Amino acid sequence: MVLPELKRRRDKIRLLMAQQHIDAALIACNVNLLYTCGQIISGYLYLPLESPACIFVKRPNNITGEHIHPIRKPEQIIEILKEQGLPTPETIMLEGDELPFNEYNRLAAMFPESKVVNGTPIIRQARSVKTEMEVEMFRHAGTAHAQAYEKIPSVYREGMTDVELSIEIERLMRLEGNLGIFRIFGQSMEIFMGSLLVGNNAAEPSPFDFALGGKGVDPSMPVGASGVRIQRGNAVMVDYGGNFNSYICDMTRVFSVGGLPEEAYRAHQVCLDVQETVASMAKPGAICEDLYDAAMNVVTKAGLADYFMGIGQKAKFIGHGIGLEINEVPVLAPRVKMELEAGMVFALEPKIVLPEIGAVGIENSWVVTTEGVEKLTLCKEEIVDLLG
Amino acid sequence: MVLPELKRRRDKIRLLMAQQHIDAALIACNVNLLYTCGQIISGYLYLPLESPACIFVKRPNNITGEHIHPIRKPEQIIEILKEQGLPTPETIMLEGDELPFNEYNRLAAMFPESKVVNGTPIIRQARSVKTEMEVEMFRHAGTAHAQAYEKIPSVYREGMTDVELSIEIERLMRLEGNLGIFRIFGQSMEIFMGSLLVGNNAAEPSPFDFALGGKGVDPSMPVGASGVRIQRGNAVMVDYGGNFNSYICDMTRVFSVGGLPEEAYRAHQVCLDVQETVASMAKPGAICEDLYDAAMNVVTKAGLADYFMGIGQKAKFIGHGIGLEINEVPVLAPRVKMELEAGMVFALEPKIVLPEIGAVGIENSWVVTTEGVEKLTLCKEEIVDLLG
Repeated sequence: MVLPELKRRRDKIRLLMAQQHIDAALIACNVNLLYTCGQIISGYLYLPLESPACIFVKRPNNITGEHIHPIRKPEQIIEILKEQGLPTPETIMLEGDELPFNEYNRLAAMFPESKVVNGTPIIRQARSVKTEMEVEMFRHAGTAHAQAYEKIPSVYREGMTDVELSIEIERLMRLEGNLGIFRIFGQSMEIFMGSLLVGNNAAEPSPFDFALGGKGVDPSMPVGASGVRIQRGNAVMVDYGGNFNSYICDMTRVFSVGGLPEEAYRAHQVCLDVQETVASMAKPGAICEDLYDAAMNVVTKAGLADYFMGIGQKAKFIGHGIGLEINEVPVLAPRVKMELEAGMVFALEPKIVLPEIGAVGIENSWVVTTEGVEKLTLCKEEIVDLLG
Repeated sequence: MVLPELKRRRDKIRLLMAQQHIDAALIACNVNLLYTCGQIISGYLYLPLESPACIFVKRPNNITGEHIHPIRKPEQIIEILKEQGLPTPETIMLEGDELPFNEYNRLAAMFPESKVVNGTPIIRQARSVKTEMEVEMFRHAGTAHAQAYEKIPSVYREGMTDVELSIEIERLMRLEGNLGIFRIFGQSMEIFMGSLLVGNNAAEPSPFDFALGGKGVDPSMPVGASGVRIQRGNAVMVDYGGNFNSYICDMTRVFSVGGLPEEAYRAHQVCLDVQETVASMAKPGAICEDLYDAAMNVVTKAGLADYFMGIGQKAKFIGHGIGLEINEVPVLAPRVKMELEAGMVFALEPKIVLPEIGAVGIENSWVVTTEGVEKLTLCKEEIVDLLG
């Protein structure tokens, strides 16, 4: 990756550091190394406020360049910083919400004279507003994601289980260039490439804080497809991560097998109305909770609030920031006062679960522009019948 | 899962806790919750030395039973423990190598009168010796893994890239029941379902501490297949995780396209010899470093030490424990004095990288029995030609 882009990203972090009187950051987690170095290494980025960043690499052993230093263990960093004439920081930040307790303490112990603070919120805030290059990568991902989804009817065969259809969709996504890996902030949520929810399985609660759940096929993976055969009259909701270049698009479409009861189309239309309402309000300065409230208004007026975002166990958001991870800032949820900014990218996913039918609704990925929002995932939004 | 099995696992942890004078554990990480509760929840297991364990569940909202308590936040645990008449522990352990720094501190703060210690090594030690049920789950996984690999020649088409063949192998694995998700201890290593290494890509170093590397197709996923077309004369090494029921088998097989130069078959045979030597020594009481040294002896006598476990950047182990994660205890590596015990399960993966040809060698998963080892991944071990 070109250095001006990396410098731009590092300077976004530096700006927030300066506001909080933090002199340096030591970055050690893969996703933040990817953001600031343009690649994943086993190593560290030392980011001082005033001097160029230094990269310390344990592996691979073939990376060289200016400001790049091979090390065997992190404690060597201190010595090298001294050789470079860099001062000991008064305050340094580490990734406190991401680094394991013992790794954090090991790194903190390298700076006995410094105040050590949590840098995760700052890095997440910096990452929440994408650069033009990041937005462009999202556009490419959105195109590839839509191309894979358009082929879904071609891989459906009557009598398939939800897992079998999932496997064919995974293959379509991979053939389109999806890297497979699905990155999630925090250590508690797990999912494979995405989720396919058929019929009543859409109402099954999961341990994870995704929009909807699903029973899964094993207690070790309690989310998504559950192994049931896809029946006529089932709504089939397809929700996969679109990681084609490290930026994860998020997109949901609904399919039927020989059509659905009329109430399903009505509920689906309500979700499209929610999307239109929220998209028309979303622009720099719009407040997250206002978008959530507007969505709830549409759904409540339609008499479908009890079925919105799950039944029994409900998701308490209608959208979420996306980027190198699927759950970034901002979150479109109650009590979130954050304002949208140009360059933020988010998924908006109004969904309704209907008993005996399944889940309907829509999810697209959007980038906030100077005047409004631009949709990244352009693909037919009505319920598509798999029988053609 | 049946309670006697879960009690057996919890008691293995308790035994090690007692030896280190630890009165209670609070378990919060998915993989350890899966081990001790039989399923992943969003919540906590409180494991006192002398009383029954209590489960505290945030999500899903439909789990009930004896000793199971719904909570909204972890701080409620303390109150409930008091209501149950459980004493404040003098010493409590948390997952210090796994929990993020801030989550660890939040949980530790709930026990202001207790000494808080790192429980990760104890839990990993307990998990390293599998119960009979866990071994049985591994046997099932090994069978499914082998069945998927046997079908690999049927999905090969001339002119494929390594990524295209990977995608078809992923599909075979998923159709055989593979859950897809690949769990790794620690936060620094990432991989999708496994790795396919063709020709010189096998010599490319990666940031990750797997046996071999590979360039990958994107700087965000620098391991494995790199997008090259598979050519005649290339060795094709297939190394996927076999997660069919949460226990991850590990297995590598080598394929050719129209045969390989003679030196490849010779090097492959050396790896099979290493496997035979190590497997014949492996039994309860065998010391890990002795197994490593014996492997190095075979390879050195064959004159292939320079190519063993990579060239340029080499892996410093020949095998590793497997279980709910791919990198468990024990590790077959220099200076590891740990003794094998009956019930340990490990992958043994002697591999040789030959310039201009690629990687040859073998990997199987093994369980330590009372007298020796049992192979879990039974499938042809010679180099198989994809052209049949």
